[in-house]
Formats: sequence, C-alpha cells, structure tokens
Amino acid sequence: MRQLPQLLVHLTQSLSKLPGIGPKSAERIALYLVQTDPVQVHQIAQTIKDACDKISDCSICGALTEDQPCGICKNPQRDHRLICLVEKPSDLINLEKSGIFKGRYHVLGGKISPINGIGPEDLRIEQLEQRIKTETPEEIIIALDTDVEGDATSYYLAERLSSSSVKVTRLAHGIPAGSGLEYADELTLNHALSGRREIQ
Amino acid sequence: MRQLPQLLVHLTQSLSKLPGIGPKSAERIALYLVQTDPVQVHQIAQTIKDACDKISDCSICGALTEDQPCGICKNPQRDHRLICLVEKPSDLINLEKSGIFKGRYHVLGGKISPINGIGPEDLRIEQLEQRIKTETPEEIIIALDTDVEGDATSYYLAERLSSSSVKVTRLAHGIPAGSGLEYADELTLNHALSGRREIQ
Repeated sequence: MRQLPQLLVHLTQSLSKLPGIGPKSAERIALYLVQTDPVQVHQIAQTIKDACDKISDCSICGALTEDQPCGICKNPQRDHRLICLVEKPSDLINLEKSGIFKGRYHVLGGKISPINGIGPEDLRIEQLEQRIKTETPEEIIIALDTDVEGDATSYYLAERLSSSSVKVTRLAHGIPAGSGLEYADELTLNHALSGRREIQ
Repeated sequence: MRQLPQLLVHLTQSLSKLPGIGPKSAERIALYLVQTDPVQVHQIAQTIKDACDKISDCSICGALTEDQPCGICKNPQRDHRLICLVEKPSDLINLEKSGIFKGRYHVLGGKISPINGIGPEDLRIEQLEQRIKTETPEEIIIALDTDVEGDATSYYLAERLSSSSVKVTRLAHGIPAGSGLEYADELTLNHALSGRREIQ
C-alpha cells in the first residue's frame, strides 16, 4: 500500500552510499534536492561530474590535481629539499590547509598491512626512490599515522632508504595542542616523555 | 602558499550547502567522490538531476510525485472518505512509510505564522475546500505539528471548514510510544490526561 516516488527512493539510496550519510540524512538531502531551485541542483550535479572527471592523481607526487603535474610539484617556490610523505591525498590536504609546510609531498597510497594483504610493492615506494635520485631532496619527513601499521611502515621506509644519503625524519609524537595529561593514553605519554625537549 | 585543487574546493563548498552537511563532512564526501569509481559517481549525479527534473508537486494533493496526479490520488483502492492534512511533503512520506493510513492526503504547504508573514492565503486551503466539494470526503484528519503555529492553524481550519458537512479531527496528543512520564513536559501531560480513554 505504501506509495512513494520511486525516483526519490532511488536518490535516497544513492545518497546513503556516501561516507557519513545515514538513511535519515540521505532522505533529508533528497527531499531538499527535489524541492530546491533546479538551477542550483543542476549546478551541484555538474560540479560532482566535473570534479570526478577532471581530478586525477599527480604523476609525480600522487596528490589529487586538475593539472599534470600538480600545482605543488611544478611550483619553483616550494622547497625542493623537503619531501613530506603522507598516506592519503586527504592527509596532504590537511597539511596544506595548515599552510605550515613549504616543501613538496609524496603520497604513499596506504600503509604496510599484512593482515589486509598490503605489502611494500603495493605502495608508491619505488616512485619515491626514483624521486630521491632525480630530485635529490635532503630530507624525507614521514607523516604517517601513529598506529601500529604507520609505525611499521615508517621503520621499513627508514631502513629501506638508509642506503641513500637522504635524511629520514618523522613527525613528533606527544600531547596534542589544547589537550592535557588526563586525556593522554600511556603510549602518547611515553612518546611525549621520550621526545621531551629543553626549553630555550 | 596553499595549493588545493580548485574543483575540489568548489565541490566541497557546493556540498556544504546541503542540509546537515558541515564543512568537514562536505570535504569527506568530496574526497570520496573524486576517488571512487567514476561510473558510480556519474550515476549519483544523474540521479540527482533526474529526481530534480522529474519530481514535482501533485496537482491535486501537493505531494512529491513523478506522475500527475500522484499514485495515491489516482489509486482507487485508497479510501476516498479520508483526507489527511499534513504540513510538508516529508510529513506525508513519514506517514506513508508507516503504512497505517489508507486514505488520501492534502499538503498544506506550511502553517499560519504571522511572525513569518504567512497567512491563510499563502497555504493550500482553497484547494482543500475545492476537494471537499468535488471529492466529498467524510473526514479531514489534521496531522499538523503540536506547536503554537500548528495549534493555531488547526483551530483556524476547524472553524473555516465548519460550514461544510465534513468532520474535522486531529491526531491524538499524548505520551509517545516507548516513553515514560519522566520525559513528558507539562503540556504533553495535560494533553495525555484530557485525552484519556477507557480501557476496553
């Protein structure tokens, strides 16, 4: 007996596949889309298509980009002595939004994870070694997560790159800004203690 | 110095206009869309366009529909003696999903709200009166919200429709299912008490 417009049901189902969108949010967005100014809705749909068609991975660093190579790789003002190694394009975007890092990036495309069947050959490590040869950076800054897989991948890379003359560093671990000791777990406290620095 | 793909920024901004989507969720969805199977993304964009183009208001009841009139209005099996009056198309969808109501609907398109400049002439009341004349229903069930504006609109409608022979009823107010007295406010308790029924 239930009679709902099939296209609306279909739209709701499509939207609920998006990350972080549950069935309730999907229905709310679907209702909004079919009741809003059609010009605006067509623009949203076109923007989705355009972004999907025109954005690809940078052939050098692996970042998401509209141009080949990406704006960061072809920018002569970016410090070519530093390469920051990140796991995913979104990590790069977060770092870039902070505006702190002035060097270049390399997207690894994952972390070594035997349980998920991801080995070193599935990551963009060979491309990194190639870049070390051609671009001769002075330092590779590893900015992987601080979980078990991130740690393992970092140690593996430090070992593998030790034959080249490049310096391999890793982001500092410790208490996050605006947080206190009561929220820090044991491992974080361990990192924070062992990484303590003299106040100057 | 910050260099992010402009299309990705544009997509994130477009998505953050959707209801319930903040900047962080919008970025997460945008990143998903540019990194997923393009076929699937094009399908989502096309579904949005299709739904926006093909869904409109039913010429009779005002519900969202792909056909004119909507499936409910043209279904001879729906009880033509009952018309349920709702504020928005989403209210109709919620009722319809419950599968309890077998009659027809009428979407009012809002509630009387002097503070927002919405008077009776802005609502689909004349269309309702026309339907009462042509369809001769026995009962109009008012299913508006139980806020001040919903109450005012309900009383206004009961008064305005009193000249016709149609019975005007309103959904029962009281303690919601699965809830208890400790969560009920004074007004709800008042409604629940005054609307008490004999146990049969």
